[in-house]
Amino acid sequence: MKAELIAVGSELLLGQIANTNAQFLSQQLAEIGIDVYYHTVVGDNPQRLTHAIEVAKQRSNLIIFTGGLGPTKDDLTKETIANMLNKSLVLDEEAWRSICDYFSKTKRPMSPNNRKQALVLEGSYVLKNEHGMAPGMAITVDHITYMLLPGPPKEMQPMFIKYGRPFLLQKRHVREKIVSRVLRFFHIGESQLEAEIEDFIDAQTNPTIAPLASDGEVTLRLTAKHEREEEAKRLIDELEQNILARVRPYFYGYNDDTLFSKLLATLKENNQTLAVAESLTGGLFLEEMTALPTASTVIAGGVVCYTNEIKENVLHVPKEILQTEGAVSERCAQLMAENVRKLCGSDIGISFTGVAGPNELEGKPVGTVWIGIAIEQGTKTFGLTLSGGRRAIRMRTAKYGCYYLLQLLH
Amino acid sequence: MKAELIAVGSELLLGQIANTNAQFLSQQLAEIGIDVYYHTVVGDNPQRLTHAIEVAKQRSNLIIFTGGLGPTKDDLTKETIANMLNKSLVLDEEAWRSICDYFSKTKRPMSPNNRKQALVLEGSYVLKNEHGMAPGMAITVDHITYMLLPGPPKEMQPMFIKYGRPFLLQKRHVREKIVSRVLRFFHIGESQLEAEIEDFIDAQTNPTIAPLASDGEVTLRLTAKHEREEEAKRLIDELEQNILARVRPYFYGYNDDTLFSKLLATLKENNQTLAVAESLTGGLFLEEMTALPTASTVIAGGVVCYTNEIKENVLHVPKEILQTEGAVSERCAQLMAENVRKLCGSDIGISFTGVAGPNELEGKPVGTVWIGIAIEQGTKTFGLTLSGGRRAIRMRTAKYGCYYLLQLLH
Repeated sequence: MKAELIAVGSELLLGQIANTNAQFLSQQLAEIGIDVYYHTVVGDNPQRLTHAIEVAKQRSNLIIFTGGLGPTKDDLTKETIANMLNKSLVLDEEAWRSICDYFSKTKRPMSPNNRKQALVLEGSYVLKNEHGMAPGMAITVDHITYMLLPGPPKEMQPMFIKYGRPFLLQKRHVREKIVSRVLRFFHIGESQLEAEIEDFIDAQTNPTIAPLASDGEVTLRLTAKHEREEEAKRLIDELEQNILARVRPYFYGYNDDTLFSKLLATLKENNQTLAVAESLTGGLFLEEMTALPTASTVIAGGVVCYTNEIKENVLHVPKEILQTEGAVSERCAQLMAENVRKLCGSDIGISFTGVAGPNELEGKPVGTVWIGIAIEQGTKTFGLTLSGGRRAIRMRTAKYGCYYLLQLLH
Repeated sequence: MKAELIAVGSELLLGQIANTNAQFLSQQLAEIGIDVYYHTVVGDNPQRLTHAIEVAKQRSNLIIFTGGLGPTKDDLTKETIANMLNKSLVLDEEAWRSICDYFSKTKRPMSPNNRKQALVLEGSYVLKNEHGMAPGMAITVDHITYMLLPGPPKEMQPMFIKYGRPFLLQKRHVREKIVSRVLRFFHIGESQLEAEIEDFIDAQTNPTIAPLASDGEVTLRLTAKHEREEEAKRLIDELEQNILARVRPYFYGYNDDTLFSKLLATLKENNQTLAVAESLTGGLFLEEMTALPTASTVIAGGVVCYTNEIKENVLHVPKEILQTEGAVSERCAQLMAENVRKLCGSDIGISFTGVAGPNELEGKPVGTVWIGIAIEQGTKTFGLTLSGGRRAIRMRTAKYGCYYLLQLLH
């Protein structure tokens, strides 16, 4: 199957939103082994949509549309396709009932154009919308499959996963199973990682290896195909072991893991509590940790000591230290970690101090960072020199905090 | 001009990244009055890229490419276009010098394929890359303008703004000036805002009004065209005044303002310092404030009191209050705000407590929120019931904190 994604919506052409639907569907299709060759975005205009479909028909045999299934007169995806395919639109009883239910439940008045949302292409397979009103649909005409999905991601994504993806898998009669696994690395650059495993990358056939760098991290996506799922998994296990034998110190997790979620899980396993003193990072580390559900079982809290007064008065860093060595110093990081641990009565204290920019501080250049980690047995400190803008330096500092603490805890 | 954006890169078709370049360029082109009719994404494949360009040539007279200007053999945008236009690629001396400089400065070894990056289409106008190696370029052949930009946003965006946009403005010989202004609102829904100014929206011609809702905020983009820039500005001023006469209580800023940046600016104007006690928000409020440069002049810092022990031991909220009324209570919010103000010796204290979910807390449902604001004259508290997931509740709580404090300070 050669797939093309057509997103319909003038808001995309005006740049009001990014086409994240194409990203989601591309990932999904890659996972089930369907190659996507083109994305197209077109506005709410029947002539231009027709032209886009005509182009797509020449080069693709699976065309997936997102958007344009709403109730207003701007929404014309299914009308345009019905015209092109010479099909009529018919009322889908189930969708119509669910729309009526929605209005009676929320006691909102229904307008006549809501009925339009329950119309589907005659003879199409209807994809139920469990998070909104407009149903999706799929139909194959002249060996080309058209799938229509709603635009809002919170409706489109669950619809595709629950109904669209199984439809395509069945359509393809695939017996081959595709298994994918992402390995996540920190503290190693993309080119260095690629150099370490260059021979595997050059020799890749099944599984394949796709490296990607973002936000100061590098990931490798391993994808294997096999008729038996266990065999596909075994192929990935084997490659993973060979890769990690070379670069294990930088490996921290799989798939949707983050350094923060790994740290939370490890603290929970160890039944240890953490307190945090943040100067440079200004609350970012605590924010990332507490954004995770159930963080409160191990994250005690902490102090954001953005000024020296708070370092002194709340965290009891002696004035002399601040005056002689400065707030951006190894000694200050050490005391911040030790004292926040005591103040909060937690097992571990971690601290962040440094210069995020735009200007230097205490004569120390932008990117100077000190991290302190205090445990019962003593305190360790880590010095870093980071590059990048203010946000990047703060985020990479917080991630290094996770990384160093994870290494101590293992 | 009818514009089409072609992004070249297999990573987009695999869903590894979203096509944010198309969003950025669409916004930029809308601002200068160029209509974008199509976005296309195509992989690193010369046949399919050629096909995409042939399609684009039929329907557009400005084609802007992003990506495929790198040093590897996968990067083939300019080679493919050179082939199609029957042009050769020639070395751009300035780009070549800047690439050599880069390697000598960073002491990295140069590889032969780096020279490929300094090649440009013969006769093209070269767009300097001040944030990377590959230059961009623009050339007009048979009334169609081709503009080639690099893929990484941090190279592409400044290149387009500094060199690409002026090139297009000159190309169009526009005498008409386009002025755009975004008005930002909080604590009002999109449909309510639209209803309040429905007559203006219905009557819009010049200026135009484009509403957009995101992240619990609503914006209106006003865009006016006129030969004289001052007159375009005057048209926008007039419409803005008419709109704000109806909905001023919800208006908080312009363009790139955020509630956090407005609060920072107001605190600076008033020369007031702020301390923060965060339970529910777990550091998010402080993180957003300190992410802004120069926050340290007015943001003292604060306490993230994620557990009751810290509320009691660090913020001195009496145990009885926590046991009888609970951590999620008006009284607790009040004491947190007052005590963090005292602890940090700041002019103002603000506090956040509540239930972010996924589970209820102290028998209080997810979305229950209390905000306290303590100033010298006394303390105000605000109760909210918010809907949405964990992240949305935390972010909206932090924004309401800004909003209420801004109202008190004005």
